[in-house]
Amino acid sequence: MNGQPPIRIGMVLFPKLTQLDLTGPYEVLNADPRTRIDLLWHRLEPIEAQGGLILTPSAAFEDYGRPDVLFVPGGPGVLDAMDDEALLDFIRGAAGHARYVTAVCTGSLVLAAAGLLAGRRATCHWSSIHLLELMGATPVNERVVEDGKFVSGGGVTSGIDFGLVLASRLLGEDAARRIQLLLEYDPAPPFEGGHPDTAPAETVDAVTGLMSDIIEKRRQAAERIARERLKL
Amino acid sequence: MNGQPPIRIGMVLFPKLTQLDLTGPYEVLNADPRTRIDLLWHRLEPIEAQGGLILTPSAAFEDYGRPDVLFVPGGPGVLDAMDDEALLDFIRGAAGHARYVTAVCTGSLVLAAAGLLAGRRATCHWSSIHLLELMGATPVNERVVEDGKFVSGGGVTSGIDFGLVLASRLLGEDAARRIQLLLEYDPAPPFEGGHPDTAPAETVDAVTGLMSDIIEKRRQAAERIARERLKL
Repeated sequence: MNGQPPIRIGMVLFPKLTQLDLTGPYEVLNADPRTRIDLLWHRLEPIEAQGGLILTPSAAFEDYGRPDVLFVPGGPGVLDAMDDEALLDFIRGAAGHARYVTAVCTGSLVLAAAGLLAGRRATCHWSSIHLLELMGATPVNERVVEDGKFVSGGGVTSGIDFGLVLASRLLGEDAARRIQLLLEYDPAPPFEGGHPDTAPAETVDAVTGLMSDIIEKRRQAAERIARERLKL
Repeated sequence: MNGQPPIRIGMVLFPKLTQLDLTGPYEVLNADPRTRIDLLWHRLEPIEAQGGLILTPSAAFEDYGRPDVLFVPGGPGVLDAMDDEALLDFIRGAAGHARYVTAVCTGSLVLAAAGLLAGRRATCHWSSIHLLELMGATPVNERVVEDGKFVSGGGVTSGIDFGLVLASRLLGEDAARRIQLLLEYDPAPPFEGGHPDTAPAETVDAVTGLMSDIIEKRRQAAERIARERLKL
């Protein structure tokens, strides 16, 4: 491609990530030949995503070098990732050099736990967006949030919108429009209520109930990390 | 879960599938504890999706038994899958017993090549939807198409809408609404033009140009299969 080196996109893996947080942006950002995506983990052994999908790393953190774009997905495994010091070290090192430091869903909690979002505007899955503030970030209830080199997407399916916004920054708007058409992204949700602002109260209550344990654990972790690591 | 056996969803893998065709519906349909999804291939060795993502089967065709829901993704690998007799045999056997026989994107070309869509209404990625007719199906330019037990989705990202429609059939509308909220599916495409009916002509021309070789190969395969295998 014009002799240019590829745009290196490094996507962090961890056990119990939500696979669509990652596979949505992966499909979008991989649709242009100018990018190269790697899946990164401590080791090359596969990890198991939430629900059982197996994902196989293409590089280990220590061998990968520097990405142009760093990406962190969310999911139940965020709770452990927020306290994985070697993973956080990799993220901090990569973030210092990357053109874009990005996350989808609760991946922004990992960036915040690494101390990268202090004073930054960011978004997160609706269930956990309030936790960003505990670690010094400014939560913004929008589907894609850009603050300088930091770009974040909301919950799970937001990763496709996020990916297209990021593609337009990296590759230009024309290329992003071609990707949107290639992926036939002309969504037609069968129901209203994909966000708690529009969903019926009983649906919000049911989903919040299912998530209450993990949200409480994340809250405790965020408070502890803010106090002990971030000194907030 | 109330002692009920899980709803068995069998998703067919093949090399060079488009991973988001599969990972979108996987996330949606896996979000309810009443389902169990397996990834199926001839053998248990991993396959490489279009663009390089590694996907690992959880069962081999001959060991899997019968799914309640059969699912086929699309992608460049469809061309080989349309002529993979052992894969087509598995699909035909599974389809005879399944409650739903489904596909996203060009996966419907595989179902058609297996002889399952004769006289049936179905959709496909916009670039290749016209090829369904060559194999006896009735192409319908909608994002999700239901014809009895046959349910199909359009290109790539349609798989999320498809997944939610199928979830409402399998699990009930309340459960599908909870999944939509859990996955924060409140899409906000950054551009218009995710479908050729609304995209600028130059974008449609650019994407069609990129795909012209594979579409021509698919056309030749569909004509040959219709003549030699389907006797149309």
